[in-house]
Amino acid sequence: MLNDADTTFLSALEGALPPGRLRAPGAQELEEPRGRWQGRAAAVAMPATTAEVSVILRAAHSARVGVVPYAGGTGLVGGQVMGEGALPLLLSVERLNRIRDIDAAGGTMVAEAGCILAQVQAAAADAGRLFPLSLGSEGSARIGGLLGTNAGGTGVLRWGNMRDLCLGLEVVMADGQVWHGLKRLRKNNMGYDLRNLVIGSEGTLGVITAATLRLFPRPAQTGAALMVVPGPDAALALLSMAQARLGEGISAFELISGMGLQFLAETMPDLRRPFDPAPDWMVLIDLGMTEDPAPALEALFEEAAEAGLVEDGLIAQSEAQRAQFWKIRETIPEANRRIGGVSNHDISVPLAKVPEFIDRAGPLLAEIGAFRINCFGHLGDGNLHYNIFPLQGHSRAEHDNQRDAIKACVHDLTHELGGSVSAEHGIGRLKVGDLERYGDPVALAAMRAIKGALDPLGILNPGAVLRA
Amino acid sequence: MLNDADTTFLSALEGALPPGRLRAPGAQELEEPRGRWQGRAAAVAMPATTAEVSVILRAAHSARVGVVPYAGGTGLVGGQVMGEGALPLLLSVERLNRIRDIDAAGGTMVAEAGCILAQVQAAAADAGRLFPLSLGSEGSARIGGLLGTNAGGTGVLRWGNMRDLCLGLEVVMADGQVWHGLKRLRKNNMGYDLRNLVIGSEGTLGVITAATLRLFPRPAQTGAALMVVPGPDAALALLSMAQARLGEGISAFELISGMGLQFLAETMPDLRRPFDPAPDWMVLIDLGMTEDPAPALEALFEEAAEAGLVEDGLIAQSEAQRAQFWKIRETIPEANRRIGGVSNHDISVPLAKVPEFIDRAGPLLAEIGAFRINCFGHLGDGNLHYNIFPLQGHSRAEHDNQRDAIKACVHDLTHELGGSVSAEHGIGRLKVGDLERYGDPVALAAMRAIKGALDPLGILNPGAVLRA
Repeated sequence: MLNDADTTFLSALEGALPPGRLRAPGAQELEEPRGRWQGRAAAVAMPATTAEVSVILRAAHSARVGVVPYAGGTGLVGGQVMGEGALPLLLSVERLNRIRDIDAAGGTMVAEAGCILAQVQAAAADAGRLFPLSLGSEGSARIGGLLGTNAGGTGVLRWGNMRDLCLGLEVVMADGQVWHGLKRLRKNNMGYDLRNLVIGSEGTLGVITAATLRLFPRPAQTGAALMVVPGPDAALALLSMAQARLGEGISAFELISGMGLQFLAETMPDLRRPFDPAPDWMVLIDLGMTEDPAPALEALFEEAAEAGLVEDGLIAQSEAQRAQFWKIRETIPEANRRIGGVSNHDISVPLAKVPEFIDRAGPLLAEIGAFRINCFGHLGDGNLHYNIFPLQGHSRAEHDNQRDAIKACVHDLTHELGGSVSAEHGIGRLKVGDLERYGDPVALAAMRAIKGALDPLGILNPGAVLRA
Repeated sequence: MLNDADTTFLSALEGALPPGRLRAPGAQELEEPRGRWQGRAAAVAMPATTAEVSVILRAAHSARVGVVPYAGGTGLVGGQVMGEGALPLLLSVERLNRIRDIDAAGGTMVAEAGCILAQVQAAAADAGRLFPLSLGSEGSARIGGLLGTNAGGTGVLRWGNMRDLCLGLEVVMADGQVWHGLKRLRKNNMGYDLRNLVIGSEGTLGVITAATLRLFPRPAQTGAALMVVPGPDAALALLSMAQARLGEGISAFELISGMGLQFLAETMPDLRRPFDPAPDWMVLIDLGMTEDPAPALEALFEEAAEAGLVEDGLIAQSEAQRAQFWKIRETIPEANRRIGGVSNHDISVPLAKVPEFIDRAGPLLAEIGAFRINCFGHLGDGNLHYNIFPLQGHSRAEHDNQRDAIKACVHDLTHELGGSVSAEHGIGRLKVGDLERYGDPVALAAMRAIKGALDPLGILNPGAVLRA
């Protein structure tokens, strides 16, 4: 059992750290981002160095006090918000915000856990390189949290998840010892892959303090197109056709539904609409190549139109127009928030199963009630954000008693199709039950054994990923 | 302490399996491939199904008998050959050799652990896809061993190591329970990353019985060039230039030394020589693109020649010529075997440190004795095979007493430069001491804790990776 982070613990910790390292938690730090529950914390520790993180964990370990690592606070599954159990300490990485090193020729950057994603992207750009992770919250999400949750976003199709963008880690373990693993190597088979184990463990196996990130050449030319497709199956066939024509030049392939466009029209009527009337389905294709992508996009459009895979389309004629296309895609989550979702799902299925999932999920949900469904996301990865909303003029509160049935319906179908009920957001506290329900029991037992081996007292982010 | 796989154990096991599942070990299965030591085993088990693997491990677990997983037997660090300790059982995956499923559109294949790499490559090609792992032993290496060691090879620059080519695993754990993890998802954040933990654990955390592998579009056009470079630093600059021109079209970028060419001339005088006299350094560039790569290679050659980065070059004019270029690269390991190495090293350093490593290692070794050095490998990954040979007319036996000093010299320098002393071959039994010497102590303690958690009796490949 863990102990509260009481005043005795806090004053001892204060004495062990430089002045000004502890403060009271802010309201935002104790709020689950979608308002499901409130967190609790005795204080927020703001270490400025890896050594200070080590001091904090040593103290928490010896006092058996829970520690909740806190990065940008943008996580959508409550991994950063602990509402139950003994009163914990929040460990914010906000002051660990230095970029320690950039090696443009070698294609690496060493960034501390508190660096904001946009800052890392900008530093890479200043060095003539690309750090390709890209997602809606990049202005506030921090590297430590992005690694902790193995973040995804729009560039995964081409460059991979956060784990694929990381070559090495510096991690403070549960007992305060520091693993110095900031290697800058493309190949390293020196024992078990602890790097990938800690990435995605959501702060439950160690606190990441810094990482070696991979940088890539900036594509010399970029381009984008919006293409109206008859349905998800045509979108998949278009993806195959695009891959055959454009090879690895495809940086993103995003599905957008008519419902998403309608939500934009309802909540942000001034936003420019690419097609009128709004189509049922369209895709955003983004390209980065050594040569001008426009001719290839035109040829793709013609071939796809002949094959009946696209019905209409726009090819960006400038960087500004490309940004407009992206603005549509990136604004959909904000429109969703304004409409107010009943239940949101971050699921993935094998690529070929995407149309079947979409075909079957709608009728199943209609048996539960009358909803609007905004299905969008990273089609190239088989990753859909499948979000359920009230009909126009109705409120989410009317559907409170249906939420569990909706979630079970979507997740059961996902599982039946060999999918994952957490494609990119992680488990946090929201999906602990889903991991137990849909995860492989042998894998789950192995996860518990690993947690017990690396954090025997259970002080690291108690109750996240695995039940405390 | 483990027990011998004695006759009582073997006859009980025989009774629990279908007939014909046990046999005596063959000589080759008990031989460390470079002849360093002899292995021992009571018998070889040849399960034909995952359920039979489970039966074997349950029996071994309850009798506390060691089990050495055996795949193609091509590993270079003795992970498959156990010479010390209680008499173990070899578990050969040779009969688990079915390709269970190919989904060409979805880009996945489910292959059992005993499938030979060449068989997997051919099955992917038959489906119009590419399985990009490529290495010298592809005619005998099996998927289970390739995953167990996180194999590398020549395609890593573009497509990644074996772990990057695997989406899911089926694994029998130490106690015989089966983890059914054959997902076919690009994105899946359902808890800890057990897949990457088992991959590269060299059979010490579980026995892989099948895997979901990633398939890729086959590049429409391929090409290759040999370019003579003044030295490794010019080779690196040429790589940067090539990446700017050819983007992700570069499938391989291999360094070949004049010594390697001389070894070919000495041992295989009939092999066609591309340049006469042999240059000190050259690179093999391999391309796969949507358009014809020859013009881009010619432009690259001209630009690089003007910048003083290349001195001579050949661009393949046909697929046959491309195969000839590759034949040179692929035959060097065989030439090395015929010459007879004193000490071989599979190291990686940060890309920018490759020239410094090569500059400094030679003079340091000259202080130990007079040697010939064949340095070649996967320059694009910073991965060098840095192999030490006797002078012409001398034998490796003359240098037996210098081997430890040579190894320490090469590995110390690698470590000083932030490198890895096992870039792609793994730890096996040969490098257990190296992992202890050069690995991070906190990481090593975490590895031991994980081993204890997942295989508390220590029956899985005892003494590999971590001291038994």
